[in-house]
Amino acid sequence: MNARNPVEFYFDFSSPYSYIASEWVEAVAARHGRTVRWHAILLGATFQAAELKSPVSYPVKREYALADFQRSARFEGVPYRAPERFPIPTQNAARVFWWLADREPERAAGLGPCRAARLLHARRGARCAGAAEGAVCRGRARREAAEAAWGDPAWKARLKAENDAAIAAGVFGAPSFLVDGELFWGNDRRAQLERWLATGPF
Amino acid sequence: MNARNPVEFYFDFSSPYSYIASEWVEAVAARHGRTVRWHAILLGATFQAAELKSPVSYPVKREYALADFQRSARFEGVPYRAPERFPIPTQNAARVFWWLADREPERAAGLGPCRAARLLHARRGARCAGAAEGAVCRGRARREAAEAAWGDPAWKARLKAENDAAIAAGVFGAPSFLVDGELFWGNDRRAQLERWLATGPF
Repeated sequence: MNARNPVEFYFDFSSPYSYIASEWVEAVAARHGRTVRWHAILLGATFQAAELKSPVSYPVKREYALADFQRSARFEGVPYRAPERFPIPTQNAARVFWWLADREPERAAGLGPCRAARLLHARRGARCAGAAEGAVCRGRARREAAEAAWGDPAWKARLKAENDAAIAAGVFGAPSFLVDGELFWGNDRRAQLERWLATGPF
Repeated sequence: MNARNPVEFYFDFSSPYSYIASEWVEAVAARHGRTVRWHAILLGATFQAAELKSPVSYPVKREYALADFQRSARFEGVPYRAPERFPIPTQNAARVFWWLADREPERAAGLGPCRAARLLHARRGARCAGAAEGAVCRGRARREAAEAAWGDPAWKARLKAENDAAIAAGVFGAPSFLVDGELFWGNDRRAQLERWLATGPF
Protein backbone atom coordinates (compact mmCIF):
# COMPACT_ATOMS: atom_id res chain seq x y z
CA MET A 1 0.00 0.00 0.00
CA ASN A 2 1.30 3.39 -0.96
CA ALA A 3 -0.13 6.30 1.02
CA ARG A 4 0.29 8.41 -2.10
CA ASN A 5 -2.08 6.34 -4.24
CA PRO A 6 -4.95 8.52 -5.43
CA VAL A 7 -8.59 7.63 -4.89
CA GLU A 8 -9.86 6.50 -8.29
CA PHE A 9 -13.40 7.85 -8.39
CA TYR A 10 -15.74 6.35 -10.99
CA PHE A 11 -18.94 8.28 -11.56
CA ASP A 12 -21.76 8.68 -14.06
CA PHE A 13 -23.08 12.21 -14.50
CA SER A 14 -26.62 10.81 -14.50
CA SER A 15 -26.25 9.01 -11.16
CA PRO A 16 -27.65 10.85 -8.12
CA TYR A 17 -25.53 8.77 -5.73
CA SER A 18 -22.45 9.68 -7.83
CA TYR A 19 -23.42 13.33 -7.56
CA ILE A 20 -23.77 13.11 -3.76
CA ALA A 21 -20.37 11.40 -3.53
CA SER A 22 -18.84 14.02 -5.83
CA GLU A 23 -19.72 16.59 -3.16
CA TRP A 24 -17.62 14.91 -0.45
CA VAL A 25 -14.93 12.83 -2.18
CA GLU A 26 -12.33 15.61 -2.60
CA ALA A 27 -12.58 16.73 1.02
CA VAL A 28 -12.44 13.19 2.37
CA ALA A 29 -9.43 12.29 0.23
CA ALA A 30 -7.61 15.55 1.06
CA ARG A 31 -8.14 14.99 4.78
CA HIS A 32 -6.06 11.84 4.42
CA GLY A 33 -3.41 13.20 2.08
CA ARG A 34 -4.83 11.66 -1.06
CA THR A 35 -5.82 13.15 -4.37
CA VAL A 36 -8.81 12.07 -6.44
CA ARG A 37 -8.63 10.87 -10.02
CA TRP A 38 -12.02 11.39 -11.67
CA HIS A 39 -13.34 8.86 -14.19
CA ALA A 40 -16.55 9.65 -16.04
CA ILE A 41 -18.14 6.38 -17.09
CA LEU A 42 -21.49 5.18 -18.37
CA LEU A 43 -23.44 2.97 -16.01
CA GLY A 44 -25.18 1.50 -19.04
CA ALA A 45 -21.84 -0.03 -20.09
CA THR A 46 -20.93 -1.40 -16.66
CA PHE A 47 -24.44 -2.75 -16.12
CA GLN A 48 -24.32 -4.54 -19.45
CA ALA A 49 -20.91 -6.07 -18.72
CA ALA A 50 -22.08 -7.32 -15.31
CA GLU A 51 -25.54 -8.37 -16.57
CA LEU A 52 -27.16 -5.83 -14.25
CA LYS A 53 -29.88 -3.24 -14.69
CA SER A 54 -30.41 0.13 -13.06
CA PRO A 55 -32.27 -0.02 -9.72
CA VAL A 56 -34.87 2.33 -11.22
CA SER A 57 -35.75 -0.22 -13.90
CA TYR A 58 -37.51 -2.33 -11.24
CA PRO A 59 -40.80 -0.60 -10.28
CA VAL A 60 -40.75 -1.35 -6.54
CA LYS A 61 -37.07 -0.57 -6.15
CA ARG A 62 -37.47 2.53 -8.32
CA GLU A 63 -39.98 4.05 -5.92
CA TYR A 64 -37.66 3.45 -2.97
CA ALA A 65 -34.58 4.64 -4.88
CA LEU A 66 -36.15 7.93 -5.97
CA ALA A 67 -37.01 8.68 -2.32
CA ASP A 68 -33.63 7.44 -1.12
CA PHE A 69 -31.76 9.74 -3.53
CA GLN A 70 -33.44 12.67 -1.80
CA ARG A 71 -33.02 11.37 1.74
CA SER A 72 -29.37 10.46 1.12
CA ALA A 73 -28.73 13.96 -0.25
CA ARG A 74 -30.36 15.52 2.81
CA PHE A 75 -28.37 13.19 5.05
CA GLU A 76 -25.12 14.43 3.48
CA GLY A 77 -26.32 18.04 3.46
CA VAL A 78 -26.16 18.19 -0.31
CA PRO A 79 -28.74 20.19 -2.31
CA TYR A 80 -30.71 17.91 -4.60
CA ARG A 81 -33.57 18.44 -6.96
CA ALA A 82 -35.13 15.33 -8.41
CA PRO A 83 -34.99 15.43 -12.20
CA GLU A 84 -38.24 15.44 -14.10
CA ARG A 85 -36.95 12.65 -16.29
CA PHE A 86 -34.68 9.95 -15.01
CA PRO A 87 -32.18 8.67 -15.92
CA ILE A 88 -30.62 11.69 -17.60
CA PRO A 89 -28.81 10.91 -20.88
CA THR A 90 -25.19 11.88 -20.23
CA GLN A 91 -23.03 10.13 -22.80
CA ASN A 92 -22.18 13.41 -24.49
CA ALA A 93 -21.27 14.89 -21.13
CA ALA A 94 -18.97 11.94 -20.43
CA ARG A 95 -17.30 12.30 -23.84
CA VAL A 96 -16.81 16.02 -23.23
CA PHE A 97 -15.33 15.18 -19.83
CA TRP A 98 -12.60 13.07 -21.43
CA TRP A 99 -12.05 15.59 -24.21
CA LEU A 100 -11.59 18.23 -21.54
CA ALA A 101 -9.41 15.91 -19.44
CA ASP A 102 -6.90 15.85 -22.29
CA ARG A 103 -7.23 19.53 -23.15
CA GLU A 104 -7.61 21.24 -19.76
CA PRO A 105 -6.96 18.54 -17.20
CA GLU A 106 -7.37 20.88 -14.24
CA ARG A 107 -11.00 21.44 -15.28
CA ALA A 108 -11.73 17.72 -15.53
CA ALA A 109 -10.98 17.05 -11.89
CA GLY A 110 -12.14 18.33 -8.53
CA LEU A 111 -14.53 21.22 -8.79
CA GLY A 112 -14.99 20.93 -12.55
CA PRO A 113 -17.04 17.74 -12.80
CA CYS A 114 -18.41 18.39 -9.32
CA ARG A 115 -19.93 21.68 -10.47
CA ALA A 116 -21.28 20.01 -13.57
CA ALA A 117 -22.95 17.30 -11.50
CA ARG A 118 -24.37 19.94 -9.17
CA LEU A 119 -25.82 21.89 -12.06
CA LEU A 120 -27.52 18.73 -13.27
CA HIS A 121 -28.77 17.37 -9.98
CA ALA A 122 -29.39 20.44 -7.88
CA ARG A 123 -30.33 23.20 -10.28
CA ARG A 124 -31.59 22.50 -13.74
CA GLY A 125 -32.31 18.81 -13.43
CA ALA A 126 -32.97 17.18 -16.75
CA ARG A 127 -35.38 19.84 -17.92
CA CYS A 128 -32.82 21.64 -20.00
CA ALA A 129 -31.75 19.71 -23.10
CA GLY A 130 -28.01 19.69 -23.31
CA ALA A 131 -27.66 20.63 -19.67
CA ALA A 132 -25.15 17.86 -19.07
CA GLU A 133 -22.86 18.76 -21.92
CA GLY A 134 -23.13 22.46 -21.15
CA ALA A 135 -22.44 21.86 -17.50
CA VAL A 136 -19.23 20.02 -18.17
CA CYS A 137 -18.05 22.60 -20.60
CA ARG A 138 -19.13 26.14 -19.95
CA GLY A 139 -18.31 29.13 -22.09
CA ARG A 140 -19.48 29.60 -25.68
CA ALA A 141 -16.16 29.06 -27.45
CA ARG A 142 -15.36 26.00 -25.39
CA ARG A 143 -18.84 24.72 -25.92
CA GLU A 144 -18.62 24.96 -29.68
CA ALA A 145 -15.40 22.96 -29.66
CA ALA A 146 -16.97 20.48 -27.25
CA GLU A 147 -19.99 20.02 -29.51
CA ALA A 148 -17.66 18.99 -32.29
CA ALA A 149 -15.85 16.67 -29.88
CA TRP A 150 -18.83 14.73 -28.64
CA GLY A 151 -19.87 13.76 -32.15
CA ASP A 152 -16.30 12.79 -33.05
CA PRO A 153 -15.67 9.02 -33.22
CA ALA A 154 -12.34 9.57 -31.48
CA TRP A 155 -14.07 10.73 -28.27
CA LYS A 156 -16.73 8.05 -28.52
CA ALA A 157 -13.86 5.57 -28.70
CA ARG A 158 -12.08 7.21 -25.76
CA LEU A 159 -15.17 6.94 -23.56
CA LYS A 160 -15.59 3.32 -24.60
CA ALA A 161 -11.97 2.64 -23.66
CA GLU A 162 -12.51 4.30 -20.27
CA ASN A 163 -15.65 2.23 -19.66
CA ASP A 164 -13.71 -0.91 -20.58
CA ALA A 165 -10.88 0.06 -18.23
CA ALA A 166 -13.36 0.60 -15.39
CA ILE A 167 -14.98 -2.77 -16.05
CA ALA A 168 -11.55 -4.42 -16.12
CA ALA A 169 -10.86 -2.82 -12.72
CA GLY A 170 -13.98 -4.52 -11.33
CA VAL A 171 -16.34 -1.53 -11.48
CA PHE A 172 -19.99 -2.57 -11.97
CA GLY A 173 -21.83 0.43 -10.52
CA ALA A 174 -21.35 4.07 -9.60
CA PRO A 175 -20.08 5.74 -7.63
CA SER A 176 -17.15 3.40 -7.12
CA PHE A 177 -13.92 4.15 -5.32
CA LEU A 178 -10.76 2.17 -5.98
CA VAL A 179 -7.93 2.85 -3.56
CA ASP A 180 -4.81 0.77 -2.92
CA GLY A 181 -6.45 -1.98 -4.98
CA GLU A 182 -9.58 -2.06 -2.77
CA LEU A 183 -12.97 -1.45 -4.39
CA PHE A 184 -15.80 0.34 -2.57
CA TRP A 185 -19.13 0.60 -4.36
CA GLY A 186 -21.75 3.15 -3.44
CA ASN A 187 -22.16 6.54 -1.82
CA ASP A 188 -23.12 4.54 1.27
CA ARG A 189 -19.59 3.10 1.56
CA ARG A 190 -18.30 6.54 2.61
CA ALA A 191 -17.67 5.47 6.21
CA GLN A 192 -15.77 2.35 5.12
CA LEU A 193 -13.71 4.36 2.63
CA GLU A 194 -12.89 6.91 5.32
CA ARG A 195 -11.75 4.20 7.71
CA TRP A 196 -9.55 2.70 4.97
CA LEU A 197 -7.96 6.08 4.30
CA ALA A 198 -7.50 6.77 8.02
CA THR A 199 -6.17 3.44 9.22
CA GLY A 200 -5.43 1.30 6.15
CA PRO A 201 -6.85 -2.16 5.51
CA PHE A 202 -9.36 -3.41 8.07
CA MET B 1 -44.86 10.32 14.61
CA ASN B 2 -45.00 8.50 17.90
CA ALA B 3 -41.68 8.16 19.74
CA ARG B 4 -42.97 4.87 21.09
CA ASN B 5 -43.28 3.20 17.69
CA PRO B 6 -41.05 0.14 17.55
CA VAL B 7 -38.46 -0.42 14.87
CA GLU B 8 -39.91 -3.08 12.59
CA PHE B 9 -36.89 -5.17 11.63
CA TYR B 10 -37.27 -7.44 8.59
CA PHE B 11 -34.53 -10.01 8.18
CA ASP B 12 -33.75 -13.26 6.39
CA PHE B 13 -31.68 -15.76 8.36
CA SER B 14 -29.67 -16.47 5.21
CA SER B 15 -28.72 -12.83 4.64
CA PRO B 16 -25.24 -11.79 5.88
CA TYR B 17 -26.22 -8.12 5.90
CA SER B 18 -29.30 -9.04 7.99
CA TYR B 19 -27.03 -10.88 10.39
CA ILE B 20 -24.70 -7.89 10.74
CA ALA B 21 -27.68 -5.61 11.38
CA SER B 22 -29.11 -8.07 13.90
CA GLU B 23 -25.96 -7.49 15.96
CA TRP B 24 -26.57 -3.75 16.34
CA VAL B 25 -30.30 -3.12 15.89
CA GLU B 26 -31.36 -3.75 19.50
CA ALA B 27 -28.66 -1.49 20.96
CA VAL B 28 -29.36 1.30 18.48
CA ALA B 29 -33.12 1.16 19.08
CA ALA B 30 -32.70 1.00 22.87
CA ARG B 31 -30.40 4.02 22.83
CA HIS B 32 -33.33 6.00 21.45
CA GLY B 33 -36.07 4.53 23.61
CA ARG B 34 -37.43 2.18 20.98
CA THR B 35 -38.03 -1.53 20.95
CA VAL B 36 -37.47 -3.83 18.00
CA ARG B 37 -40.10 -6.06 16.44
CA TRP B 38 -38.40 -8.90 14.62
CA HIS B 39 -39.86 -10.22 11.36
CA ALA B 40 -38.28 -13.32 9.79
CA ILE B 41 -38.99 -13.23 6.07
CA LEU B 42 -37.77 -14.96 2.94
CA LEU B 43 -35.85 -12.80 0.52
CA GLY B 44 -36.90 -15.20 -2.22
CA ALA B 45 -40.49 -14.04 -1.72
CA THR B 46 -39.72 -10.31 -1.64
CA PHE B 47 -37.38 -10.60 -4.63
CA GLN B 48 -40.06 -12.37 -6.61
CA ALA B 49 -42.69 -9.77 -5.74
CA ALA B 50 -40.40 -6.92 -6.76
CA GLU B 51 -39.01 -8.76 -9.82
CA LEU B 52 -35.53 -8.71 -8.30
CA LYS B 53 -32.81 -11.31 -7.87
CA SER B 54 -30.20 -11.80 -5.18
CA PRO B 55 -27.00 -9.80 -5.73
CA VAL B 56 -25.10 -13.08 -5.62
CA SER B 57 -26.96 -14.35 -8.68
CA TYR B 58 -24.97 -11.93 -10.87
CA PRO B 59 -21.37 -13.24 -11.20
CA VAL B 60 -19.55 -9.88 -11.05
CA LYS B 61 -21.69 -8.51 -8.23
CA ARG B 62 -21.46 -11.84 -6.40
CA GLU B 63 -17.68 -11.60 -6.18
CA TYR B 64 -17.91 -8.08 -4.77
CA ALA B 65 -20.77 -8.99 -2.41
CA LEU B 66 -18.98 -11.98 -0.90
CA ALA B 67 -15.99 -9.76 -0.10
CA ASP B 68 -18.23 -6.92 1.08
CA PHE B 69 -20.08 -9.21 3.53
CA GLN B 70 -16.73 -9.84 5.21
CA ARG B 71 -15.52 -6.24 5.09
CA SER B 72 -18.86 -4.92 6.35
CA ALA B 73 -18.77 -7.39 9.23
CA ARG B 74 -15.24 -6.31 10.12
CA PHE B 75 -16.30 -2.67 9.85
CA GLU B 76 -19.07 -3.26 12.40
CA GLY B 77 -16.82 -5.43 14.58
CA VAL B 78 -19.05 -8.44 14.08
CA PRO B 79 -17.54 -11.94 13.79
CA TYR B 80 -18.31 -13.45 10.42
CA ARG B 81 -17.38 -16.68 8.75
CA ALA B 82 -18.28 -16.98 5.10
CA PRO B 83 -20.52 -19.98 4.54
CA GLU B 84 -19.23 -22.74 2.30
CA ARG B 85 -22.49 -22.72 0.41
CA PHE B 86 -24.44 -19.55 -0.21
CA PRO B 87 -27.25 -18.72 0.03
CA ILE B 88 -28.18 -20.87 3.03
CA PRO B 89 -31.68 -22.43 2.82
CA THR B 90 -33.54 -20.98 5.79
CA GLN B 91 -37.24 -21.39 5.14
CA ASN B 92 -37.57 -23.94 7.93
CA ALA B 93 -35.75 -21.59 10.27
CA ALA B 94 -38.16 -18.80 9.37
CA ARG B 95 -41.17 -21.04 9.97
CA VAL B 96 -39.75 -22.09 13.32
CA PHE B 97 -39.18 -18.43 14.15
CA TRP B 98 -42.91 -17.68 13.73
CA TRP B 99 -43.92 -20.87 15.53
CA LEU B 100 -41.71 -19.78 18.39
CA ALA B 101 -42.98 -16.19 18.19
CA ASP B 102 -46.46 -17.51 19.04
CA ARG B 103 -45.29 -20.01 21.62
CA GLU B 104 -42.43 -18.26 23.42
CA PRO B 105 -42.46 -14.69 22.11
CA GLU B 106 -39.58 -13.58 24.31
CA ARG B 107 -37.33 -16.08 22.49
CA ALA B 108 -38.36 -14.82 19.05
CA ALA B 109 -37.08 -11.31 19.65
CA GLY B 110 -33.82 -9.69 20.62
CA LEU B 111 -31.13 -12.14 21.55
CA GLY B 112 -33.06 -15.17 20.34
CA PRO B 113 -32.94 -14.68 16.57
CA CYS B 114 -29.73 -12.74 16.96
CA ARG B 115 -28.01 -15.76 18.48
CA ALA B 116 -29.46 -17.97 15.79
CA ALA B 117 -28.10 -15.69 13.07
CA ARG B 118 -24.73 -15.62 14.80
CA LEU B 119 -24.58 -19.39 14.97
CA LEU B 120 -25.26 -19.54 11.24
CA HIS B 121 -22.98 -16.76 10.06
CA ALA B 122 -20.16 -16.74 12.56
CA ARG B 123 -19.79 -20.29 13.75
CA ARG B 124 -21.14 -23.19 11.79
CA GLY B 125 -21.81 -21.51 8.49
CA ALA B 126 -23.84 -23.63 6.15
CA ARG B 127 -21.74 -26.72 6.67
CA CYS B 128 -24.12 -28.26 9.15
CA ALA B 129 -27.40 -29.39 7.62
CA GLY B 130 -30.24 -28.15 9.74
CA ALA B 131 -28.05 -25.56 11.41
CA ALA B 132 -30.58 -22.84 10.78
CA GLU B 133 -33.53 -24.65 12.26
CA GLY B 134 -31.46 -25.89 15.18
CA ALA B 135 -30.10 -22.43 15.80
CA VAL B 136 -33.53 -20.88 16.05
CA CYS B 137 -34.77 -23.54 18.33
CA ARG B 138 -32.27 -25.08 20.68
CA GLY B 139 -32.94 -27.85 23.14
CA ARG B 140 -33.97 -31.37 22.18
CA ALA B 141 -37.59 -31.26 23.33
CA ARG B 142 -38.19 -27.90 21.72
CA ARG B 143 -36.45 -29.07 18.59
CA GLU B 144 -38.68 -32.11 18.22
CA ALA B 145 -41.77 -29.93 18.45
CA ALA B 146 -40.19 -27.46 16.04
CA GLU B 147 -39.48 -30.20 13.52
CA ALA B 148 -43.16 -31.04 13.51
CA ALA B 149 -44.00 -27.35 13.15
CA TRP B 150 -41.86 -26.58 10.13
CA GLY B 151 -43.49 -29.34 8.09
CA ASP B 152 -46.95 -28.24 9.20
CA PRO B 153 -48.96 -26.39 6.52
CA ALA B 154 -50.18 -23.97 9.20
CA TRP B 155 -46.64 -22.61 9.74
CA LYS B 156 -45.90 -22.59 6.02
CA ALA B 157 -49.03 -20.47 5.66
CA ARG B 158 -48.01 -18.22 8.55
CA LEU B 159 -44.62 -17.52 6.98
CA LYS B 160 -46.29 -16.83 3.66
CA ALA B 161 -48.65 -14.37 5.36
CA GLU B 162 -45.69 -12.65 7.03
CA ASN B 163 -43.86 -12.39 3.69
CA ASP B 164 -46.99 -10.92 2.13
CA ALA B 165 -47.34 -8.41 4.97
CA ALA B 166 -43.71 -7.35 4.53
CA ILE B 167 -44.20 -6.93 0.79
CA ALA B 168 -47.36 -4.88 1.43
CA ALA B 169 -45.30 -2.67 3.75
CA GLY B 170 -42.90 -1.96 0.87
CA VAL B 171 -40.12 -4.37 1.86
CA PHE B 172 -38.17 -5.66 -1.15
CA GLY B 173 -34.85 -6.62 0.47
CA ALA B 174 -33.28 -7.39 3.82
CA PRO B 175 -32.43 -6.14 6.25
CA SER B 176 -35.16 -3.50 6.16
CA PHE B 177 -36.18 -1.17 8.97
CA LEU B 178 -39.58 0.43 9.08
CA VAL B 179 -40.00 3.12 11.69
CA ASP B 180 -42.68 5.81 11.95
CA GLY B 181 -43.73 4.82 8.43
CA GLU B 182 -40.23 5.40 7.00
CA LEU B 183 -38.47 2.52 5.23
CA PHE B 184 -34.70 2.07 5.37
CA TRP B 185 -33.20 -0.73 3.32
CA GLY B 186 -29.80 -2.21 4.05
CA ASN B 187 -27.28 -2.66 6.81
CA ASP B 188 -25.59 0.37 5.25
CA ARG B 189 -28.51 2.62 6.19
CA ARG B 190 -27.53 2.35 9.87
CA ALA B 191 -26.34 5.97 10.06
CA GLN B 192 -29.54 7.28 8.47
CA LEU B 193 -31.69 5.16 10.76
CA GLU B 194 -29.76 6.43 13.79
CA ARG B 195 -30.25 10.02 12.73
CA TRP B 196 -33.98 9.38 12.28
CA LEU B 197 -34.22 7.88 15.75
CA ALA B 198 -32.17 10.69 17.28
CA THR B 199 -33.73 13.72 15.64
CA GLY B 200 -36.82 12.57 13.76
CA PRO B 201 -37.51 13.11 10.07
CA PHE B 202 -34.68 14.76 8.11
